[in-house]
Amino acid sequence: MSSDPYYELGKQLRALLSGFLQGAPPAPTPDKPHGPGSSAFTQWGPRIQVAGLEDLYHPQQVKSFVVPPGGIDNLSLNSVDKFLIPGRGEFSVNFGGMMQIARANPTSRDWAAANVYVNMLEMNLRASHPDLGKILVKQNPALVSPGQTFGSGLATAPAKCRIAAGVTFEAPDMGVTMFNREPILLMNDAIESIPPIEDPNGAAHLYRLPLFDTRKPDGEPVAYITGLNYTIGNYLTRADAAAFRAG
Amino acid sequence: MSSDPYYELGKQLRALLSGFLQGAPPAPTPDKPHGPGSSAFTQWGPRIQVAGLEDLYHPQQVKSFVVPPGGIDNLSLNSVDKFLIPGRGEFSVNFGGMMQIARANPTSRDWAAANVYVNMLEMNLRASHPDLGKILVKQNPALVSPGQTFGSGLATAPAKCRIAAGVTFEAPDMGVTMFNREPILLMNDAIESIPPIEDPNGAAHLYRLPLFDTRKPDGEPVAYITGLNYTIGNYLTRADAAAFRAG
Repeated sequence: MSSDPYYELGKQLRALLSGFLQGAPPAPTPDKPHGPGSSAFTQWGPRIQVAGLEDLYHPQQVKSFVVPPGGIDNLSLNSVDKFLIPGRGEFSVNFGGMMQIARANPTSRDWAAANVYVNMLEMNLRASHPDLGKILVKQNPALVSPGQTFGSGLATAPAKCRIAAGVTFEAPDMGVTMFNREPILLMNDAIESIPPIEDPNGAAHLYRLPLFDTRKPDGEPVAYITGLNYTIGNYLTRADAAAFRAG
Repeated sequence: MSSDPYYELGKQLRALLSGFLQGAPPAPTPDKPHGPGSSAFTQWGPRIQVAGLEDLYHPQQVKSFVVPPGGIDNLSLNSVDKFLIPGRGEFSVNFGGMMQIARANPTSRDWAAANVYVNMLEMNLRASHPDLGKILVKQNPALVSPGQTFGSGLATAPAKCRIAAGVTFEAPDMGVTMFNREPILLMNDAIESIPPIEDPNGAAHLYRLPLFDTRKPDGEPVAYITGLNYTIGNYLTRADAAAFRAG
């Protein structure tokens, strides 16, 4: 996997620059709360330090009930999103593509006890709907999308994981790009490995989640997400990931 | 209600200053998206313009299936919150107090069709728990807590409302103030008036919502909310609201 010198160079540069690229977390100020301008009070959770985490593609060994060291997972993803569009109705849209999740090193190597903090770094989903046209879903670069897995308390019991996702929905045929200001809470309730793979039971916990027009972010919602179910697939090959990224 | 000259003066000052006190919404820029530094991309929704809305206390006429003009509701509130504290366990805490909700003028006066956008401006809840001690819940001044009611589509059918709440939990006996970075999604699924009053069926939609220490906002979560059920009471008298505010 590491035979491509440009890839290796890119990985090293990424590791070197990640503090700048990702935005360094604000320095802790133990004696007073951060002010209202601090991202710690407006972002949905902390950033993961991605420097030093390996970028992981297919093939990978994923073992049940074993907590792996940190890494960056490039995973296949399919999603069925329901949109309520005021004045037009409700539409179910099938998306396919990928996501990239950074996993920090676990708090423990014990499946029963480990918490693993994650950030969704990238999302690339596409759909083509007969009424709504093309829709592209991408990670919203203005937002941290934090999450975590929770130890199940037992050595071989399924665990749960959550990610608070912030994305944009580019809908060129509708002439709009929409984004969520409240997190889309992606939940897997019974994962038997980290990351979960080939798990068709992902579902967002939400209620009519408002979507706003990026050109009028303080206007009224232009649509609502009323349901979202997803399947996490396997690790992608580097070539398949590149194809999703190229569009 | 308007016989107190200091109250009238206060109301006028509040109306005059509300743009400054609440923070004016960013000017719309229809031709390009707001940048990552814009609050429109990191706050959970738009601010309501509170200038011109009347501050409403008991007694008020609240009519079923009738959409009132905008106003600021000062309401009794009781809540049972469940906290999971890593290493300590799960605790159920009974809170009592009030909240203040600004309701914008409705998009329609028709119950079936009206959307009403709201902001939670204030929360004042108190509890005393045998294990956790005193806990005070307040609106987090760094965050907008947006919400809305949704027209039910029918003239006399119950409607739904949501508020994405950002609060602080001051727990002096635990030596910590905690806050949520993802919204606590307060939901009433069957309201027959705006505001809902004497409604015991409020419940938050959440899954292990992380709470952070205000002194270490980018640290690990220090607790999780695992459940939250609430009862909205009636309008408070000005005296009762003052008592809750004074503590």
